[in-house]
Amino acid sequence: MSNETAEKKMIRGGQFIVTETAAEDVFTPEDFSDEQQMMKESVREFVDKEIVPHKERFEKKDYALTEEVMRKAGEMGFLGIAVPEEYDGLGMGFVSTMLVCDYISGATGSIATAFGAHTGIGTMPITLYGTEEQKKKYVPKLATGEWFGAYCLTEPGAGSDANSGKTKAELTEDGKHYKINGQKMWISNAGFCNVFVVFARMGDDKNITGFIVENDPSNGISMGEEEHKLGIHSSSTRQVFFNDCLVPVENMLAGQGEGFKIAMNALNVGRIKLAAACLDAQRRVISLATQYANDREQFNTPIAKFGAIRKKIADMATNAYVGESASYRAAKGIENRIHARQEAGETFAQSELKGVEEFAIECSILKVAVSEDMQECADEGIQIYGGMGFSADAPMEAAWRDARISRIYEGTNEINRMLAVGMLVKKAMKGHVNLLEPAMAVGQELTSIPSFDTPDYSQLFAEEKEMLAKLKKVFLMVAGSAVQKLGTELEKHQQLLLAASDILIEIYMAESAILRTEKNVNRSSEEAQKEQIAMSKLYLYKASKVIQAKAEEGIAGFAEGDEQRMMLMGLKRFTKYANLPNVIELRNTIADKVTEENKYPF
Amino acid sequence: MSNETAEKKMIRGGQFIVTETAAEDVFTPEDFSDEQQMMKESVREFVDKEIVPHKERFEKKDYALTEEVMRKAGEMGFLGIAVPEEYDGLGMGFVSTMLVCDYISGATGSIATAFGAHTGIGTMPITLYGTEEQKKKYVPKLATGEWFGAYCLTEPGAGSDANSGKTKAELTEDGKHYKINGQKMWISNAGFCNVFVVFARMGDDKNITGFIVENDPSNGISMGEEEHKLGIHSSSTRQVFFNDCLVPVENMLAGQGEGFKIAMNALNVGRIKLAAACLDAQRRVISLATQYANDREQFNTPIAKFGAIRKKIADMATNAYVGESASYRAAKGIENRIHARQEAGETFAQSELKGVEEFAIECSILKVAVSEDMQECADEGIQIYGGMGFSADAPMEAAWRDARISRIYEGTNEINRMLAVGMLVKKAMKGHVNLLEPAMAVGQELTSIPSFDTPDYSQLFAEEKEMLAKLKKVFLMVAGSAVQKLGTELEKHQQLLLAASDILIEIYMAESAILRTEKNVNRSSEEAQKEQIAMSKLYLYKASKVIQAKAEEGIAGFAEGDEQRMMLMGLKRFTKYANLPNVIELRNTIADKVTEENKYPF
Ligand SMILES: Cc1cc2nc3c(=O)[nH]c(=O)nc-3n(C[C@H](O)[C@H](O)[C@H](O)COP(=O)(O)OP(=O)(O)OC[C@H]3O[C@@H](n4cnc5c(N)ncnc54)[C@H](O)[C@@H]3O)c2cc1C
Ligand SMILES: Cc1cc2nc3c(=O)[nH]c(=O)nc-3n(C[C@H](O)[C@H](O)[C@H](O)COP(=O)(O)OP(=O)(O)OC[C@H]3O[C@@H](n4cnc5c(N)ncnc54)[C@H](O)[C@@H]3O)c2cc1C
Repeated sequence: MSNETAEKKMIRGGQFIVTETAAEDVFTPEDFSDEQQMMKESVREFVDKEIVPHKERFEKKDYALTEEVMRKAGEMGFLGIAVPEEYDGLGMGFVSTMLVCDYISGATGSIATAFGAHTGIGTMPITLYGTEEQKKKYVPKLATGEWFGAYCLTEPGAGSDANSGKTKAELTEDGKHYKINGQKMWISNAGFCNVFVVFARMGDDKNITGFIVENDPSNGISMGEEEHKLGIHSSSTRQVFFNDCLVPVENMLAGQGEGFKIAMNALNVGRIKLAAACLDAQRRVISLATQYANDREQFNTPIAKFGAIRKKIADMATNAYVGESASYRAAKGIENRIHARQEAGETFAQSELKGVEEFAIECSILKVAVSEDMQECADEGIQIYGGMGFSADAPMEAAWRDARISRIYEGTNEINRMLAVGMLVKKAMKGHVNLLEPAMAVGQELTSIPSFDTPDYSQLFAEEKEMLAKLKKVFLMVAGSAVQKLGTELEKHQQLLLAASDILIEIYMAESAILRTEKNVNRSSEEAQKEQIAMSKLYLYKASKVIQAKAEEGIAGFAEGDEQRMMLMGLKRFTKYANLPNVIELRNTIADKVTEENKYPF
Repeated sequence: MSNETAEKKMIRGGQFIVTETAAEDVFTPEDFSDEQQMMKESVREFVDKEIVPHKERFEKKDYALTEEVMRKAGEMGFLGIAVPEEYDGLGMGFVSTMLVCDYISGATGSIATAFGAHTGIGTMPITLYGTEEQKKKYVPKLATGEWFGAYCLTEPGAGSDANSGKTKAELTEDGKHYKINGQKMWISNAGFCNVFVVFARMGDDKNITGFIVENDPSNGISMGEEEHKLGIHSSSTRQVFFNDCLVPVENMLAGQGEGFKIAMNALNVGRIKLAAACLDAQRRVISLATQYANDREQFNTPIAKFGAIRKKIADMATNAYVGESASYRAAKGIENRIHARQEAGETFAQSELKGVEEFAIECSILKVAVSEDMQECADEGIQIYGGMGFSADAPMEAAWRDARISRIYEGTNEINRMLAVGMLVKKAMKGHVNLLEPAMAVGQELTSIPSFDTPDYSQLFAEEKEMLAKLKKVFLMVAGSAVQKLGTELEKHQQLLLAASDILIEIYMAESAILRTEKNVNRSSEEAQKEQIAMSKLYLYKASKVIQAKAEEGIAGFAEGDEQRMMLMGLKRFTKYANLPNVIELRNTIADKVTEENKYPF
């Protein structure tokens, strides 16, 4: 099978917005293989043994403890999941990589960050872009935790605008070294890492270049003090200064000027893994909050019996379930794509890079959605604990602080929101996703008379799937008209882009939960999936509300008069339920289950 | 004029939901007297001089610094604003009390809490319920900051259920003392206070009783260590243990079993002041974030020019403006009521208590709305700072942590939400607010044919006022039907209550901003109030969206079939704009002004 054919057969990234995905075609956490289940259990045990008991030390900035736990994680093989066996990794697939990242990150953001920075942006650029020599030299050490990695992209003046760094690299006169000078900021793992991936500019190059730099203080490398941070207290974060630091010429990564591409691709993987890293943290907060709510009595009643608390528990569980659904759906999409490319003869690195890049839209969507769900979850966790939630001795306090960083790094959520839509538009222009025809069809539908048939909604999710299809039309209507009207100026209309992005995000998340549940109902029963059905319906309803509001905001922003009226009519039609769900009842169904099981049970 | 007549002439608390208030009848921050302006300036100067420069010490748990600043605030007279002159206070009105609370609280939550606990719940119970002897003995010391007060209500088992405490008080055999035994928790100012207001139960009384207890370690009073908290790091918070603590009989506050009433009334005042205490903190965060956004460049552009940032700044400014509008509107309502009662011959204490109690609904509304706006404001402040926002050296980090407590204490926001609607229903039952007739009128309107006239919207806020009137109908429709259907069972339907409460809250907040702006336009011009008009419109639009969603949730929760359809039709009609506002444009108008002035300018 040629590359082309393989590509055509697969689901493309971003395509979800214009196609209906069959439930059978999505991967769900219930599809984990035995091997994956075992891996999950072993990571969870590791966390319960090595991290949970030391929570207090993690909050007291015990950087050495982080290093120690990371070292142990290396011994367990957790740092090498994504690394090919030839470089001493486990060579497992993308789903397994996500899974380990998910379960290792649940108990403290300090380890989540250290793990993410090391295995993701610290190791992957070398694994994927390194020469054979570079890989042989560095990757086995990184995969086993003998060495630790860090990633030096950000500078005081270059954050979101990552390609604007001032750090310089120049060839020495003897041609044997590059001399690096500059200041990097916010470098995770800096305090205990052995090797940096450093981005610097050669001459007046448009794009930066990547280098592998060993951490050697005698070679012009020095560091600032540990930053005092709001959260992730035991994650080492320092400034790193390069002062005539000499790097052997063979340590350039890929070619000159290739650094920006490396950096961006590393971030794609980083983003979806960051979503995973916000999942088990939610599960743990939900379980703890539920246990507290079942135990704590006020007015002679366990507070878990109060509607105000049940609402929170139901919403928290729903978001976690949706986040899982979407994260593993996308992960498997990536894994399939990588697999197909490898089958077609591409190298590991090439297929891995292209596979993730294909799903860059989903990576941004997930990064935004799941990081915000995590924040919300910790916030409600605190509220359920009442005054006790404000105590540093309560488990939510750190979760709330730690969650805050996930909305900032790996590209702020604003940048990722805009990227998601921006990349989709670009894909459409390239013909990789056919947005134009469906958008035009929606345009026509707006001016035609709607059907007044009453559809048959007797089948599970029949109305929900119709709603999803309609919500996709909302996106096409809003984004389509915006592109048409504003063309390349669209980029400047950020409020509009953000609104469109929220629509896109909600659709992907809602659809993922519905497909997961449908697939599981097909292999069990509606009764067995009662609560999952409720969560899927609840989320879709809430998504439809967000989408209605964001679309209206967008439409009011660029359309007037008759055109506006027509689009608003369409919007009304596209967001209208024939049978309004009773969300209070849905929440009660969910809360019953969670409080009965006394933990996040899905 | 008799009491009755005076009462009838005044706006009653909660009445806003069924009447149209004239702009001329609301008080706005632009109505501050010269004396109030001076007070505001002097408090602000005090904060800039005594608090801002020591920010780092406040974060490092420097409890002594809090005490020192409080002592200085006492020297300035700030602790005695609300205390009558005869007890060495300044005897200023309720608006001035709010104003000082507002401006003294902006720079750190530690002082906000210490100030609130001392002047509010620590001092007011004695001022309002004390005997002449008690007042003479304690109030002057508290008003001047010679002594500090604290308030001991909460216990490990009694938080939201404040009347369920286990602390006991029993008369000693000689009849000269009460002996207090029990454990109090989360007591603000405990570490440096001289006198406690303690609530304890006599025998098997249904209600608790209040006592004035001097802090004397040799009298069976001991304390836990300082609690480790998420925020307000220099606010002293300790457990307080009473072990055969002897209190002279003359130190009982009001009568036996009167404590719960005292506690609840103290909380009413505490709540509206807590709203005030979240205002200047917002202004300061907005100003700092705006300055940062104007300075910080990415992509060769000050980030303040990006739509994503402008949206945040506009939303933050709008919420702060709305919060100010509603807080001072309610404060003046209370002040007027107090004044009228005093005119009618009531005592200071009596009129003060009844005046605040009358507006207990607004107090709860404000507590919830403004505390949540503050959290949101700090959160966006962090996001505008990017990675720097996560640094403990950036100003938002502490603001975000400090803000978290305001949603928990003085009654959690859940409790206050439910109280707001609960109290309104009770007021209606008592005939103090006529909900029934308007609710029935809405019921009739639902079944009648709507008018298709196009109203004249040429006057400023014509459409907005119509929208407000319609949103009130939404509340009456939802709450009215809920009461009708569920009667006293309504209390058990908390999700419904919460939805109704959000509707109530949004209406009060939106209306307050519109009335403030209208009043100011009438004395200047639309041009001069361009941005305030934009903020009022933006907030109302967002409120209408929240209200639409919450009402729909409620309706789906208790109505089915034809009834549901009818109510949803009504809801559609009641939330529909004839001219959809362009919120993107509104935000741009607001952001232009804030970024130009480089601070919160309203
Ligand atoms: C704890 C921590 C750990 C980190 N670890 C690492 C690491 O290991 N390696 C590394 O290289 N970096 C790391 N970072 C840096 C991180 O990736 C950056 O902080 C992040 O990319 C944001 O950049 P910035 O802080 O410069 O914010 P800015 O880019 O200055 O952003 C400020 C605000 O402006 C907005 N903004 C910026 N540009 C635009 C635009 N074009 N349109 C609209 N809005 C815009 C942002 O969304 C944000 O709200 C870390 C940061 C922290 C805080
Ligand atoms: C920093 C700090 C300072 C404080 N200062 C003081 C002080 O000076 N003096 C003092 O007396 N107290 C003080 N408090 C205590 C504070 O008032 C209580 O924490 C607060 O009233 C909540 O009570 P709780 O913590 O017991 O929570 P709980 O009442 O146990 O509430 C837990 C959760 O259940 C919910 N809940 C409870 N009852 C119901 C219900 N009937 N229906 C629905 N939901 C319900 C709550 O909303 C919350 O989400 C302070 C607390 C803190 C953290």
